[in-house]
Parts: sequence; C-alpha cells; structure tokens
Amino acid sequence: MEKINLANKFELFNDHWQPKVIATMNNYQFKVAKLKGEFVWHKHDLTDEVFIVIRGELTMVFETHTVNLMTGEMIVVPKGTLHKPYADSECEVLIIEPEGVINTGDTQSDLTANNNVWV
Amino acid sequence: MEKINLANKFELFNDHWQPKVIATMNNYQFKVAKLKGEFVWHKHDLTDEVFIVIRGELTMVFETHTVNLMTGEMIVVPKGTLHKPYADSECEVLIIEPEGVINTGDTQSDLTANNNVWV
Repeated sequence: MEKINLANKFELFNDHWQPKVIATMNNYQFKVAKLKGEFVWHKHDLTDEVFIVIRGELTMVFETHTVNLMTGEMIVVPKGTLHKPYADSECEVLIIEPEGVINTGDTQSDLTANNNVWV
Repeated sequence: MEKINLANKFELFNDHWQPKVIATMNNYQFKVAKLKGEFVWHKHDLTDEVFIVIRGELTMVFETHTVNLMTGEMIVVPKGTLHKPYADSECEVLIIEPEGVINTGDTQSDLTANNNVWV
C-alpha cells in the first residue's frame, strides 16, 4: 500500500518496446514502456488493452484508421483488433491488461518481450 | 477505437466524489472523478482498486498509515482494505476497477454514487 511514481519508474530503464510491470490489480498488470519507432502488426484475441500516454506522442495504426495520442490521452484497443503502435520520437506509456499478455500478441517478432519483468 | 483526452473529460463536470465512466476494458471500467474534502471509511471486499492522480494531490488514509499522492502517482488499494480518500484541495483522479463497484464500498453514505454514469 505504497504509492508508485510513474516518472521515477521511467527513469529506471531506457530500452524500447519492453513493457515492465509496476503494479498488479486483481489479475491485471500495470506496465510502463518507452516506445520509439515502428512496432509490428499484431492483435490480442482474448483481451482488450489500454494505452495511456504519460509523455510524448503515440500513433496507433489500425486497419481502418490511425489515432494520434498526445500526453494525457488514452485508447482502448479492443480484443481481436489488429494494431501497430508507432512513435516518431520516444514516448512513455502506461499499459493496462491482464497478466500473461504478450506484447506482440499473435505475431512472433524480435520485439517479443518477456511479459513479467518488473521495474 | 477513438482516443480519450482526460483533461477534456474533467472539463465536463464539477461535482465531487461522483466517479464517471470514460472507458471499459473487458469487464473493467476507467472512471474520472474530482475529489475534495473527506470521504468515508470503506472497503471493497471483492476487488483491488487503483487510483492515479491526474492533477492535484490526494491523501489515502489507511488504518496503518497515510499515503500522500501527487500528480503522476498511483496506488493500488488491495481488496478488503479499509481506506479513506481525502483531498485538501480539489484533485482529479483516474480510477480503475471492475464494473459494478460502488464508490463507498460496504459503507452506506450520502456520498454513495450511481456506479454507471458515463461522461
């Protein structure tokens, strides 16, 4: 029952596309990640996924349209929806999703991360 | 699959202690609320609850200790844990918890809010 300072967590790592767990709520995880460049197209068939932009700008590309998110903006990616995150400059995001979700979903990639690293 | 701007949501209401849903993720809800003054002691026996401070300062009083949260800080209140939110000045928070959670938990109060109002 201690507080978690998001900015302090982001100071603890510099890699990109490697979400790190900072808290759990029931069987859900709160993860921080730094994103830069282009991710892979993927989807999560079993769960929605939330991104909240803490710093910078994040582009979420869908098959039908593209959403540009600024600091203080969030988006729910519905289950089964193909999406490709993209960030022209480094951005910092908070990701909320159930335990065990793989960052690249159904897509095997060099960007596939260990899904239970804490920071 | 559209973005949600948190600051814009907070501009849409002025009442205190009345969480308003802005998004769902699976069977969880994201709610915004403005808090000012002292809330009631209560607990949620079936679920953890997350508070993220978007603007201002929030004090979370537990039986064992007190946590002062600033903007950009979050806390997980574990299920079954008595807590009393307090804000000396108005603060804005994002609350994440399962659908159907009552803001005053197991405590009946004049502050008990409708738990499914969207904004």
